[in-house]
Amino acid sequence: MKTYVVGHQNPDTDSICAAVTYANLRKELGEEVEAIRSGKINAETEFVLDKFEVEAPKLVKKLKGDEKVVLVDHNEMSQAISGLDMNQIVGIVDHHRLGGIETDGPIFFKNETVGSTCTIITKLYKENGVEVSDQMAGLLLSAILSDTVIFRSPTCTDVDKEIAKELAKRLDLDIEKYGIELFKAGSVISTLSPREIIENDYKEYEFAGDLIGVGQIEIMSLSEIDEVKEDLLEAIEEIVEEKGYKFLVLMVTDIIAEGSLLLFNNEANSDISQAFSVDVKETEVYLDAVLSRKKQVVPVLSDYLA
Amino acid sequence: MKTYVVGHQNPDTDSICAAVTYANLRKELGEEVEAIRSGKINAETEFVLDKFEVEAPKLVKKLKGDEKVVLVDHNEMSQAISGLDMNQIVGIVDHHRLGGIETDGPIFFKNETVGSTCTIITKLYKENGVEVSDQMAGLLLSAILSDTVIFRSPTCTDVDKEIAKELAKRLDLDIEKYGIELFKAGSVISTLSPREIIENDYKEYEFAGDLIGVGQIEIMSLSEIDEVKEDLLEAIEEIVEEKGYKFLVLMVTDIIAEGSLLLFNNEANSDISQAFSVDVKETEVYLDAVLSRKKQVVPVLSDYLA
Repeated sequence: MKTYVVGHQNPDTDSICAAVTYANLRKELGEEVEAIRSGKINAETEFVLDKFEVEAPKLVKKLKGDEKVVLVDHNEMSQAISGLDMNQIVGIVDHHRLGGIETDGPIFFKNETVGSTCTIITKLYKENGVEVSDQMAGLLLSAILSDTVIFRSPTCTDVDKEIAKELAKRLDLDIEKYGIELFKAGSVISTLSPREIIENDYKEYEFAGDLIGVGQIEIMSLSEIDEVKEDLLEAIEEIVEEKGYKFLVLMVTDIIAEGSLLLFNNEANSDISQAFSVDVKETEVYLDAVLSRKKQVVPVLSDYLA
Repeated sequence: MKTYVVGHQNPDTDSICAAVTYANLRKELGEEVEAIRSGKINAETEFVLDKFEVEAPKLVKKLKGDEKVVLVDHNEMSQAISGLDMNQIVGIVDHHRLGGIETDGPIFFKNETVGSTCTIITKLYKENGVEVSDQMAGLLLSAILSDTVIFRSPTCTDVDKEIAKELAKRLDLDIEKYGIELFKAGSVISTLSPREIIENDYKEYEFAGDLIGVGQIEIMSLSEIDEVKEDLLEAIEEIVEEKGYKFLVLMVTDIIAEGSLLLFNNEANSDISQAFSVDVKETEVYLDAVLSRKKQVVPVLSDYLA
């Protein structure tokens, strides 16, 4: 039976490229494997797939429940494709916190503290002696640059840099130039509705019984959101109300200035102030040198709520 | 700060050897790491450490709660060293089912579906370009032969065999001959009390709210336990009563005949009969070709209790 490889819900470039490249690796090793996705392709990922002429993986909104599944770029059920049972999982390749998955039998799980799942997948090609095609190299490089914010994220390691440089050299691409092109293509401000902007790269968490949401957009300058900020704040209030969240934080990350403006619902004001020990304006605060949701925002919120 | 490497409670040879060899690998890579153990060294492991002149890791009964810890050969809290908090875990190398561990931040986790943790650790030496000393090779080989029951366990893979053969060749040891010597040295029948025999290689599980225990001893012939069987059954009843278990199963595995005699408490009679769909005698049943607790016994009990 065919095995599916799938990234998290609201897939970003690392999730989509990891699914495609890991499925390709397993196919090259003679296995029957197919990459799928559980949600919409975002503008950045679309740019990548177009550039390297790779078809988007098939959209599967809900699993039937009897498929074998490899998870990439996530290892917690709250972020996984709809319809998934933990015992369908036959493998995991990821770079996040351990998310509490429990299986009846042993499975393959490779989790490393690097900046991108595609860094680990590039290593798996090497370990298995499988040649990386130009198409796959393009996807792997793009995902690493995307997930490490062109090496600027604190999650970025020397291993990510080394592997990205190898891939870029082989594709004859300038990392900084291609990276900025990639992020510009992915800038969601001009193409999406306020609600879509928030949900474009979005994760839901439950800590000590409280449900919260943390979205992130990465832009080249904070001035890009001037015109839509009020609409974003309105959409945040709407989602909090709808989902019964304790709060929702949207990280508007300026990748050139290397900091994030947090936007949040009105009621979250004192929570955010206490969690980060900062003075906040009504519904926003700028945090210098904060770029990583996973490493700098979610742990702080998790500690605060615990 | 120093990082501890530790196997599961009631450590077997794979747990002890994995802790020692993995700590050694990380030391060779320049890190400050120490192997520890959370329980008594069994007779088989003692034989191995003596043979290859390696000191037993330090016994730590309870962690203080601020140490950094790498888990080897287990990844569930119910089997972990006392005093451990999930957020102390900085790495895991294992070959078991995923046990639901959850951390705040990303950590290194390498779980593979092979027969022994030491198989994975041998691969990690290779991946990191670190030379395996004769002492470490002896420990790695012994653990692989122990955990795969000299390649007879259904958990054993071609990777385990290939790596064990390389290690044996290098040490100039005959695998079958050394394996039998190892298992004879480890036979617990003559050296331990009935209760110690049960708890020598023992795991506790919770399924759907029911607490159960599954112990395993491996012997060269079932006749070895003739004289202690009644005492074992008495000790089983005693532990069940004491711990409030639903039931306790002791697998007495005949590694030459390749089957296991299950001994259990009186009240478990119909549970075991239903779980395995077999006719059982009062407090025992022989299951041909059943050698693996992890793959052939625990999943059956987990399904039955679910």
